[in-house]
Amino acid sequence: MLAVMLDGRPRTRAELGVLTGLGRGSVGSKVEALLGSGLLAPVGAAVSTGGRPPVQFRFDPGSRVVIAADLGASHGVVALTDLEGSTIDSFSAEISIADGPDEVLGWVSARADELLERHGRRDDLVGVGVGVPGPVEHSSGRPVRPPIMPGWDGFDIPARLSSEFHVPVLVDNDVNLMALGEHAAAHPQIDDLLFVKVATGIGAGIITHGRLHRGAKGSAGDLGHVASRHGGGVQCRCGNIDCLEAVAAGPALAARLRAKGIQVERTVDILHLVEAGSMEAAAELREAGRIIGEALATCVSLLNPSVIVLGGLLTRAGDHLIAGVREVVYTRSLPLATGSLQILPAETGRDAAIVGAAVMVTEHSLGVRKAAATAS
Amino acid sequence: MLAVMLDGRPRTRAELGVLTGLGRGSVGSKVEALLGSGLLAPVGAAVSTGGRPPVQFRFDPGSRVVIAADLGASHGVVALTDLEGSTIDSFSAEISIADGPDEVLGWVSARADELLERHGRRDDLVGVGVGVPGPVEHSSGRPVRPPIMPGWDGFDIPARLSSEFHVPVLVDNDVNLMALGEHAAAHPQIDDLLFVKVATGIGAGIITHGRLHRGAKGSAGDLGHVASRHGGGVQCRCGNIDCLEAVAAGPALAARLRAKGIQVERTVDILHLVEAGSMEAAAELREAGRIIGEALATCVSLLNPSVIVLGGLLTRAGDHLIAGVREVVYTRSLPLATGSLQILPAETGRDAAIVGAAVMVTEHSLGVRKAAATAS
Repeated sequence: MLAVMLDGRPRTRAELGVLTGLGRGSVGSKVEALLGSGLLAPVGAAVSTGGRPPVQFRFDPGSRVVIAADLGASHGVVALTDLEGSTIDSFSAEISIADGPDEVLGWVSARADELLERHGRRDDLVGVGVGVPGPVEHSSGRPVRPPIMPGWDGFDIPARLSSEFHVPVLVDNDVNLMALGEHAAAHPQIDDLLFVKVATGIGAGIITHGRLHRGAKGSAGDLGHVASRHGGGVQCRCGNIDCLEAVAAGPALAARLRAKGIQVERTVDILHLVEAGSMEAAAELREAGRIIGEALATCVSLLNPSVIVLGGLLTRAGDHLIAGVREVVYTRSLPLATGSLQILPAETGRDAAIVGAAVMVTEHSLGVRKAAATAS
Repeated sequence: MLAVMLDGRPRTRAELGVLTGLGRGSVGSKVEALLGSGLLAPVGAAVSTGGRPPVQFRFDPGSRVVIAADLGASHGVVALTDLEGSTIDSFSAEISIADGPDEVLGWVSARADELLERHGRRDDLVGVGVGVPGPVEHSSGRPVRPPIMPGWDGFDIPARLSSEFHVPVLVDNDVNLMALGEHAAAHPQIDDLLFVKVATGIGAGIITHGRLHRGAKGSAGDLGHVASRHGGGVQCRCGNIDCLEAVAAGPALAARLRAKGIQVERTVDILHLVEAGSMEAAAELREAGRIIGEALATCVSLLNPSVIVLGGLLTRAGDHLIAGVREVVYTRSLPLATGSLQILPAETGRDAAIVGAAVMVTEHSLGVRKAAATAS
């Protein structure tokens, strides 16, 4: 019943009976339970048709809260959000994921405590969602051989945090959460969407049938380690050679610019170069877009999405990278697949993963996906 | 309610009430309607708990029939099947898809008529499912610029056949239907499966969330036109260069064998060569497997399937091709993605597309997927 109400429209008991096919008694007891938990709120009496006044109800996203954490390589955010992922309050800080789970999760948990305390919402917490910069086995919430997260391999993140907060803890990689967040916030009606992050690393989150496609072990969307034909034998940090990430992400671009005598260290420096009018940096971004575009042409052939969203640091430096992507994807893919394909910049920006972490928790806690998948 | 019953287990009205959450009245009227249509059949009285004897019901896949047609480039099958895709009777013949829709669909409709007449099942027909060897816009049932189907571009197949049979007509490309058939018959419990056909062409059908992923325009799974780095500039019939199909499908292998002075014309000749003990043919198949394996390593990174099934003519010549695929996929993909990946030969064989066409029609006609997607 709650799934029906998540669209936010107010409805009467009678309307809920029609929409769910449940009898009057079942509707009544379910509504009572949801009112009791605060997830539904009355919105005043509708026009009566005689007898008991048919009060309307509406889903109240502010009735409960979520703790959402977005952990990057060197930056972390912990937010208190409502059930739709809107931030109520948050902390962000320079952290180092390489400090390991004890230190980093200790920080998450202290900041979360502070947020719950400050807003008096401890009893309203439905769950904790955590995004990390590496592959995660979603079912267990454990990172699996994450290349830039020393000390985290196999660490039981849910156990560590649920012992403290006594609610479900869900973990996923940051790109999957960005895809969930961008989908929920900007493209909720789209069934087939591909979200691509291009920054110091490259990754993708795939929406199929309107839902995040995690795959058998949660590693779907691993675009960064797809083979590129442009590497010429370059070693990737994963151990393979010529991975897309080793050829077209921030460090590779920075290295090529340095080879031209241009001062650049971190991925963010490339952004500053472009903003300062560097033609060389713009040309490198466009070429990176073309190389990524070749991998995305393969994704288009395989998945035929309606929308490809490009996000991450390197997509925020003008249109150079997205122009290179468009150039190759529209050249390389078959007409049927690109006829109505849109290639767009991300709308959600830096808080995409926070929104996604909250959406992941809400969907899990309210049993929305489970209901949709098993109902008859 | 029917969705619950499709597992074939007998249930009472009371059990259906529990499983569906419907009230006694709703269950009663739905059961009556399904009994009336023959989709449910009574299976004798269960042990009574007092009052009216709680009769059990079971889904009866033989209660209705489907016409399933599998049209290849040079071979066609028209079958009368039950709702699970088991063939009751069929015709197969050498046809030429290039003769165009009037002639080919005329043949389909004459044979379908004959089957319905012969078995007296005209009134039991729920729908017609058609597989064709080219891209199809699934929502309209029209082929879209199919390279080997001259005269079919944009042709309204459903209009042509439904005017005759007055039932829904669904069309998809043959590889999607093989994926549906193999999934239903051999791997019904697997949520993430990739079916790959390797024959005169190369294509894939993708199962995500337990359902066929067709993509925005129905062109998902177009593995044959993914770029390979092994082409060296070879022209593909689609107009692009170095497509996987132009490098690793039957005609490319035949050309390489001819260059070695070996007599081979059609794809099936390669099979005969391998059976006759040709080392050269076996080596070409293994190398084709490696080249296809590179594309599949990308699929594994993107989709993280539990099972990859290899089917089509060239996979039936011993284990050479599948061995090449395994060699590269297990080398190239990350451990998390391949830890529990199985790469298997197809079990359904030649009738995979017929089973798939019937399953597509049954799911559509009984509203199973719709119910699952919209229920609350």
